Amino acid sequence: MAKEKKQKRVAARLPRGFVDREAPDLRAQEAMLATIRRVYETYGFTPVETPAFEFTDALGKFLPDSDRPNEGVFSLQDDDEQWLSLRYDLTAPLARHVAENYESLPKPYRSYRAGYVFRNEKPGPGRFRQFMQFDADIVGAPNVSADAEMAMMMADTMEALGIPRGQYVIRVNNRKAFDGLRQVLGLDSREDDERWLIVLRAIDKLDKFGLEGVKELLGKGRLDESGDFTRGANLLPQQIEFIQMFYSIESIDCDDQSTPYNRLFISALHKIFGGKSELLDQAFQELLHIAQLSHAAGYDSDRIRIDTSVVRGLEYYTGPVFEAELLFDVVNEKGQKVQFGSVGGGGRYDGLVSRFMSQPVPATGFSIGVSRLMTALKNLGRLETAERTGPVVVTVMDKDRMADYQAMATKLRQALNADPSKPPVPVEVFQGNPKQFGKQLQYADRIGSPVVVIQGGDEKEAGKVQVKDLALGKELSAQITDNAEWREARAGQEMVDEDQLVEAVQAILSRMAGSSSR
Amino acid sequence: MAKEKKQKRVAARLPRGFVDREAPDLRAQEAMLATIRRVYETYGFTPVETPAFEFTDALGKFLPDSDRPNEGVFSLQDDDEQWLSLRYDLTAPLARHVAENYESLPKPYRSYRAGYVFRNEKPGPGRFRQFMQFDADIVGAPNVSADAEMAMMMADTMEALGIPRGQYVIRVNNRKAFDGLRQVLGLDSREDDERWLIVLRAIDKLDKFGLEGVKELLGKGRLDESGDFTRGANLLPQQIEFIQMFYSIESIDCDDQSTPYNRLFISALHKIFGGKSELLDQAFQELLHIAQLSHAAGYDSDRIRIDTSVVRGLEYYTGPVFEAELLFDVVNEKGQKVQFGSVGGGGRYDGLVSRFMSQPVPATGFSIGVSRLMTALKNLGRLETAERTGPVVVTVMDKDRMADYQAMATKLRQALNADPSKPPVPVEVFQGNPKQFGKQLQYADRIGSPVVVIQGGDEKEAGKVQVKDLALGKELSAQITDNAEWREARAGQEMVDEDQLVEAVQAILSRMAGSSSR
Repeated sequence: MAKEKKQKRVAARLPRGFVDREAPDLRAQEAMLATIRRVYETYGFTPVETPAFEFTDALGKFLPDSDRPNEGVFSLQDDDEQWLSLRYDLTAPLARHVAENYESLPKPYRSYRAGYVFRNEKPGPGRFRQFMQFDADIVGAPNVSADAEMAMMMADTMEALGIPRGQYVIRVNNRKAFDGLRQVLGLDSREDDERWLIVLRAIDKLDKFGLEGVKELLGKGRLDESGDFTRGANLLPQQIEFIQMFYSIESIDCDDQSTPYNRLFISALHKIFGGKSELLDQAFQELLHIAQLSHAAGYDSDRIRIDTSVVRGLEYYTGPVFEAELLFDVVNEKGQKVQFGSVGGGGRYDGLVSRFMSQPVPATGFSIGVSRLMTALKNLGRLETAERTGPVVVTVMDKDRMADYQAMATKLRQALNADPSKPPVPVEVFQGNPKQFGKQLQYADRIGSPVVVIQGGDEKEAGKVQVKDLALGKELSAQITDNAEWREARAGQEMVDEDQLVEAVQAILSRMAGSSSR
Repeated sequence: MAKEKKQKRVAARLPRGFVDREAPDLRAQEAMLATIRRVYETYGFTPVETPAFEFTDALGKFLPDSDRPNEGVFSLQDDDEQWLSLRYDLTAPLARHVAENYESLPKPYRSYRAGYVFRNEKPGPGRFRQFMQFDADIVGAPNVSADAEMAMMMADTMEALGIPRGQYVIRVNNRKAFDGLRQVLGLDSREDDERWLIVLRAIDKLDKFGLEGVKELLGKGRLDESGDFTRGANLLPQQIEFIQMFYSIESIDCDDQSTPYNRLFISALHKIFGGKSELLDQAFQELLHIAQLSHAAGYDSDRIRIDTSVVRGLEYYTGPVFEAELLFDVVNEKGQKVQFGSVGGGGRYDGLVSRFMSQPVPATGFSIGVSRLMTALKNLGRLETAERTGPVVVTVMDKDRMADYQAMATKLRQALNADPSKPPVPVEVFQGNPKQFGKQLQYADRIGSPVVVIQGGDEKEAGKVQVKDLALGKELSAQITDNAEWREARAGQEMVDEDQLVEAVQAILSRMAGSSSR
């Protein structure tokens, strides 16, 4: 028979960049997502979900650093020979969804969604090929007031998650500032696309390498300590100088205590670079507006900070862009102390929906990297990891009496879970091989069981059942040195009438709850 | 510049078999999953999650009806030229997970997980290429008592979801019964694999076509009303007769009211077919044991029913198999009244983990089809669809005063959501184009807003703000026939002091909550 054919042993392993996730992680994530969801809902956002697959052309090619077409994306042909791709973010599919349902959706359309996205990339430390994002978007919102609102909502989200003010900042820039800079530098022809990408990557490294390191990347290139050489953008000295000037602004003219930082910063930028390019001027104006709106709602530069060095890699952004950064230090894989950094970002993507339509559809959104954020909260000790009651284990002394044990478990389970508003109390019968009783107790210990129920033939005959408090048992046996004495004492164990089983178990659970809340 | 290159219009559509999902659906699903999760947790199961991708060889080829290798599975080569596949169920990945982490996991290992699975098949009505399953498994449980427990837990799950007793049944069979039948029929050579598959498919149609229709499928084939011919298994008349006899048992000897149906049924089977094949005998014995255990725990044949016609398509099952069926009628896409049918199933898969290991690892599990179940609950009117408060909308009368409106919204949002144990009250500023004020009111109406906040220049100057109760407004304007009278009355609208805004909005929300609970 088919089933009996010999099979070669298969290796039990996952492809790199994919991970299994265990209970504590999943439960903490659930609590975290609920917190984020609540914030989004108080801003009027409602959930919508799109599938993992889209037509390849519907996703478009917006991933950063992709030189080959479709690099970074998992794509395949289905049985109908159509090219499908797994979504690499949640924004491109949302754009498709809105375009497909444009008439029936309210405008503006506020929506949120959490889901896995996929990148066909070389995985690295903390870099996965499947990871979760949690996005919120407003489609049909033409004004920067919507961008300001996204930034404020992200600040609220950070605080709702328990990240103290001062430990995070939402940095805001504008894609038009880069486009304007590109114009001013005379790098806006198609042939300069690749060079400009190198410039952007260099600016993205400002907080890592400082102005001097970035200067090398804008010029011939940079040799790092390990001897690796990174090719530069080969800009002319005056171009490099201009960029340097642009990124030296932060320190000038910002010492007026009565005016908020963001406005001072933008007016300093405007004083030097105003009138040089229409796009640059627009960028300044929009950033100023965001600064004003945020200030009026009580969000100052300690929470929402204008920062012209924010580069968001995705190509579809057209206006304001944001980055949520965590400011506390962590130790990286090389043992260096570094700022935790980005846990999400977003921006305005006015062209993404209209790829599908004959009319412009302005939109702005924000995406949280769920795993990154979880790591951050773990570091801060802010991850909710509620202690759960381990299972009450009904042991099996006599395997022919399985039905009795099963019935005992059912009775306990129903009695202990009668109130659906309380956390579940797990109850299980031991389903492994019952031969060695010691293994059953080891199992109970291993899964964190608070109580074990035991009924052998003698107890059954007498209408009795043994209930063993595992925590108390451990405590007691630590005090007992003599082996015989231990057996005598049956540490933490008591014999009760069969019909007192529920009460006896409940008493131990309450005792435990009392002691753990001490 | 790159961004300005003309793009061809892209079609906004999803590949067939994939769907977008909206808020009511997602919220109902969330409530449903929470209910299922709670039941699983009370049985001692804990969550674990595996990624969407596995190595192709790790998933194995267990899908039903797949003649070509890997038919039905989405597979691709990644950048490292490795063959990866998207999971087609949650069992094969769990087996890999357990084998990979065998030493560190408790044995038995009780786990659950909900997640999307993918099938590269022709989609049809109610048949998707991405759908959600919710599984629970016990690995390292060698005895049928674990299978019995799975069946009972599924019955509990159905009732926890509000499906009344009598409207569902968990049918239980044993793969060994089929294997024994195959032996007895002399169809157990490799060459008969395909014919046997046709036999199983025929038996699977018993409730649809009855014994007569199935007889045709076991013989030359069957011509349906539409003229489509289904090729049969071409069995010999005595083979067909034997199968017919096997499936006629249900009606014999089961009229003894004092003995439970399941035991009578198995003893009738045993009386006629006992001793014909070791596998058949084993099947009867295991089914009897499950019947006894279920009966002892209070689950009789109205909930857990032994049924030898249950065919589970997946090839990896080795022992007891289950099917959760809903018994109420629905109208199918052809307008016919049919029983709702299966919402999930599972069984014992003792060989699946040991594919990866040098030792046998017995396991049993159950999988719920989440979308099917949701459809069923909708039909029963049992789907929780809690009414949500729509957003309070702060309208924009003067776009230069956006900062004021934003600040008003922030204040309202904070005040109305101070208690995190209560459902969120959404508050938003209108972020669309504010030019036509009527459109803002239409928008508020469209998204189910209970209250709209309005502040024009005059009101601002007077330190006032308008609060409009949209529900009351509709009620009143229905009573008003004269247009001028309506304008005069400003139906449902009241003017309050700026610092009374929160109280005024709160009053309308409470009034609404009171009237909707009437």
